[in-house]
Amino acid sequence: MFERQLLDHGFLRLVESYGSDEAIISAARMSTAKGFLGWGTRPDCDVCRGKGKVYDQDESIDCPRSRGENAACFSGDEKLLRYLWENAHATPFEMAGAIIEVQAPIFVFREWFGYNELSSRYTPLPDMNYVPTVERLMMGGGHLTKQAGTIDGAETLTVEAAEEYRRSLEYTYQHAEQVYQSALNKGVPKELARVHLPVGRYSRMRATGNLRGWLAFLTLRQSKKAQYEIRVYAEALHDLLAELFPRTLSLFDEGRHA
Amino acid sequence: MFERQLLDHGFLRLVESYGSDEAIISAARMSTAKGFLGWGTRPDCDVCRGKGKVYDQDESIDCPRSRGENAACFSGDEKLLRYLWENAHATPFEMAGAIIEVQAPIFVFREWFGYNELSSRYTPLPDMNYVPTVERLMMGGGHLTKQAGTIDGAETLTVEAAEEYRRSLEYTYQHAEQVYQSALNKGVPKELARVHLPVGRYSRMRATGNLRGWLAFLTLRQSKKAQYEIRVYAEALHDLLAELFPRTLSLFDEGRHA
Amino acid sequence: MFERQLLDHGFLRLVESYGSDEAIISAARMSTAKGFLGWGTRPDCDVCRGKGKVYDQDESIDCPRSRGENAACFSGDEKLLRYLWENAHATPFEMAGAIIEVQAPIFVFREWFGYNELSSRYTPLPDMNYVPTVERLMMGGGHLTKQAGTIDGAETLTVEAAEEYRRSLEYTYQHAEQVYQSALNKGVPKELARVHLPVGRYSRMRATGNLRGWLAFLTLRQSKKAQYEIRVYAEALHDLLAELFPRTLSLFDEGRHA
Amino acid sequence: MFERQLLDHGFLRLVESYGSDEAIISAARMSTAKGFLGWGTRPDCDVCRGKGKVYDQDESIDCPRSRGENAACFSGDEKLLRYLWENAHATPFEMAGAIIEVQAPIFVFREWFGYNELSSRYTPLPDMNYVPTVERLMMGGGHLTKQAGTIDGAETLTVEAAEEYRRSLEYTYQHAEQVYQSALNKGVPKELARVHLPVGRYSRMRATGNLRGWLAFLTLRQSKKAQYEIRVYAEALHDLLAELFPRTLSLFDEGRHA
Repeated sequence: MFERQLLDHGFLRLVESYGSDEAIISAARMSTAKGFLGWGTRPDCDVCRGKGKVYDQDESIDCPRSRGENAACFSGDEKLLRYLWENAHATPFEMAGAIIEVQAPIFVFREWFGYNELSSRYTPLPDMNYVPTVERLMMGGGHLTKQAGTIDGAETLTVEAAEEYRRSLEYTYQHAEQVYQSALNKGVPKELARVHLPVGRYSRMRATGNLRGWLAFLTLRQSKKAQYEIRVYAEALHDLLAELFPRTLSLFDEGRHA
Repeated sequence: MFERQLLDHGFLRLVESYGSDEAIISAARMSTAKGFLGWGTRPDCDVCRGKGKVYDQDESIDCPRSRGENAACFSGDEKLLRYLWENAHATPFEMAGAIIEVQAPIFVFREWFGYNELSSRYTPLPDMNYVPTVERLMMGGGHLTKQAGTIDGAETLTVEAAEEYRRSLEYTYQHAEQVYQSALNKGVPKELARVHLPVGRYSRMRATGNLRGWLAFLTLRQSKKAQYEIRVYAEALHDLLAELFPRTLSLFDEGRHA
Repeated sequence: MFERQLLDHGFLRLVESYGSDEAIISAARMSTAKGFLGWGTRPDCDVCRGKGKVYDQDESIDCPRSRGENAACFSGDEKLLRYLWENAHATPFEMAGAIIEVQAPIFVFREWFGYNELSSRYTPLPDMNYVPTVERLMMGGGHLTKQAGTIDGAETLTVEAAEEYRRSLEYTYQHAEQVYQSALNKGVPKELARVHLPVGRYSRMRATGNLRGWLAFLTLRQSKKAQYEIRVYAEALHDLLAELFPRTLSLFDEGRHA
Repeated sequence: MFERQLLDHGFLRLVESYGSDEAIISAARMSTAKGFLGWGTRPDCDVCRGKGKVYDQDESIDCPRSRGENAACFSGDEKLLRYLWENAHATPFEMAGAIIEVQAPIFVFREWFGYNELSSRYTPLPDMNYVPTVERLMMGGGHLTKQAGTIDGAETLTVEAAEEYRRSLEYTYQHAEQVYQSALNKGVPKELARVHLPVGRYSRMRATGNLRGWLAFLTLRQSKKAQYEIRVYAEALHDLLAELFPRTLSLFDEGRHA
């Protein structure tokens, strides 16, 4: 089962999945009671290059060599999957999905929510906090959004300053933990003793989504404009989905780089 | 427009609403092209007491005095609204809704997410942090869940200890802000300079939901088992909705206290 | 795998499911990394009767005999499942679900849509149409809604009239099919040749929903107020879910009959 | 208020809307408490042509002439709206929406369901049925999907055959209505007397969706591959939304024709 370690203490792993590329085809072809017929193309067809489709003016039509019994060009259910994908037939892609478990800093989780399509449940963890590496700190504007960059008038970050920031982070995390423990012992209710805990603290959640919902999530979170820490989780999710639904993810990747 | 101050620096206010109790009726009665007919009951009917419905064995049926032209018991669209509500006809209640703006500590927002029905967008704020009052700290297990209570073996919280915790919270918040500002000046990218900011920091969001979704939210968040800080927001939302959709909220309240 | 024949030509069958009662527990208890601990109660406990919970004033609390190591009353994860259920913690119930295939008259499918929580895809079928049995026709107001009943001033339905209606239905269906075939042969496009096909024609669909969504569907469609033809499908779905998630469905049934 | 007559007896009209292009901006810019700042561009800027953005390698960046106080190129909130749109920030587009009322043949409504984002409620109407015009019948494969075309071996449709089909449709509709009325009078329950009514019968519904959901609907239903009868409704909806949210629809149209 897919599991990947991420950042200093995080991970993303598969809990359970349902459906498959083949099940998406079956759902779409239910009317004919044919179900899934089989993959397989003739990539050597010099008209459609195995895509089964060519463009005639503005419309995509079947490869002209693919018709009839002894067609020179055969293509299997890739063609239907591509058709569903390119024409935004979303429902079949809701017939498959994945439940995952994620351990990440709280500020990463904040980016998972507000998604209509996803459902999740999470919980804080014992004293475990995110400290970016020096390399990560020096990466700076690895992406181009304003919120990622430095403030106007800031010094140029040096390796020494980065290391000092890491030390002050560690101190801050320790201090927060001490205040937390001390408050607990004094009789402060648990839910109030933790109001000062940092958003860099790790937490763990389960999230479920259908394939359509997860791909919408990837579109936004794998973008170069997303914060690096979010992106590493999105990329892990992408690879998890590519193991489960390789043909759909291949169409997704193709569309994105078009 | 509804606006209420909450906690030490928070608020909840209406941005915009759509629909009404009357529109819910119109949506449900669209087929007959009659639309909304009017409120009004005869609460003096000694059979149904103005509810328009009585129970006959296991079934609710129309008040036997309400049929025919010169019926002794008349009831207006309250009856239809009640019927829709009691029989879980959810769709009409999706024809109305509200967009709100909320300022609250981040840990409060965490409870708003994971709701399929709601959509929201939020953002952190300048140095503004939640410090519970002494009264709130002494309230302790105001509700009965384990996560709310104190840890085993804790001392009994005294007013002095509560005040000391408030001071240590304030210090912790100040320290976090200093580390943040200092990191920004040294050239740490903004998105990394804030990983240690506390979950008690205030943030602001807009959230939109239809009436059905918001009522599901209230069911969970107005519960005595919800954390006090969440509950004050849920109660403000309840009152906001009661201004906009008084008859629906009245049915909601009635059902909940049954 | 669950499959049930319904009406004259219909069925409802399981395509695939995910999650389980145990997975719901695991999702809820993720924080402690304990996962699912095991079912098992002491139904002979004379305080809580195996429910693990008793009511103290208005609140449900743990059975007083269940605490401590050598507790006289032990209860397993039923207690947590019940807690989640009774306190409307919906998210864990979204961690399980089922994909089904349904063959039913088009007018039955119309009742499946408009559900936010469900996703479906369906398709018309060759000449196969619903003809109610005489028993069904004579059942009349088996439920009490107006739309189910007869019109004012109608005769009382006799067995003979019911049989005659069945014959006229069969004739109407045959006529519709003939007009359809004839139009196709004359060159009327398929999508227009079928505009007069009846809503009693069978169609087939796949629908996917998480457990939370399906239970909301059952609440509405198993009601005595739902049309008989819908109800037989809802009841089959109930039994399918009860095979997959017996403990959750048991809580659902208990709540409904309360 | 927007209202358009469609097909022979149908229409699509606005019931109520909420939000606006400006509200989308406000939601996105809530953090800065700036809200909506104003529209307005310098379309004469010869670098960005008023878009406020240019592409540098693979990334879109601010127009280099737009920075600083006396910038040669100013652009207002179009820039932010475009940024939100192009980077798939969907949440702000959920802060606006529209409730519509639609009268259409039942088979058209079937295409509106199965949409997660939309909620609707509909009802059948008195004897009112769809009869395609001769022009529509002769239009034939106005789009290229198989389900639209004629069957293999069909004759070529003549005007005479089209007129004959229209007459046989009218007869079929009349016959269905007679069987319905006769069954009602004989005492057949209403819900069974209508099982043979045609999918071409008109019905009416209210549907609500946020802007994000409606745009996803348009993407699929305005496509040349959608059936003509669906498309006329989708186009009316497009024009309704363009009146309410002109700048967002302009970005939508631009993206679609790219």
